[in-house]
Amino acid sequence: METGHTGWSPEERHLAKQAVDLAYEREVSSLITALHHKISEVSCPGDVWNLHDYLSAKRHEMDGKFDLRDSSLLFVFATLVKDGLLSVGELDGLDREKVVKITALARM
Amino acid sequence: METGHTGWSPEERHLAKQAVDLAYEREVSSLITALHHKISEVSCPGDVWNLHDYLSAKRHEMDGKFDLRDSSLLFVFATLVKDGLLSVGELDGLDREKVVKITALARM
Repeated sequence: METGHTGWSPEERHLAKQAVDLAYEREVSSLITALHHKISEVSCPGDVWNLHDYLSAKRHEMDGKFDLRDSSLLFVFATLVKDGLLSVGELDGLDREKVVKITALARM
Repeated sequence: METGHTGWSPEERHLAKQAVDLAYEREVSSLITALHHKISEVSCPGDVWNLHDYLSAKRHEMDGKFDLRDSSLLFVFATLVKDGLLSVGELDGLDREKVVKITALARM
């Protein structure tokens, strides 16, 4: 498998992008469900601003969580597996050594 | 009516606080209704972040809109009247000259 100087082959990068997109869709779907629930309980100004704070924190967290730079990908996948947004099986096609590293990092 | 050096008597300040609180409650109530409507239309990531942007802008706008400093109050009341969050009649008890100024500013 040709990985070039980055350590990620074009095929792996394509697979990585698909897997990260899938995890992102799952996280957003779960966020939308949480939002429906939270908004149904909003009844005073404090609740509204707590909801805004929640969304601000979530956006900040997600901006970092789905970082597609090659240098971040192993840690990104480890976090996504740890958070239940991806299974190790969904990383089939990546270099075996990367999957072993991701699995080990996800257990930490 | 004793207004001191600020131009607002303690009675007027008390009335002003009550009126601003009332307008704030109305604005929040309308914001909560808007939130319920908006969440029902959220279905993709872009919608979630648009909702966050909407809340950020609303919070920023409201932080300035309900400023209780004496120096801001005439403009604050003019905006609240203009935005339909208070009626001029709800300012009864304020110095007549202030009500005239607020009414004029609200029409601009």
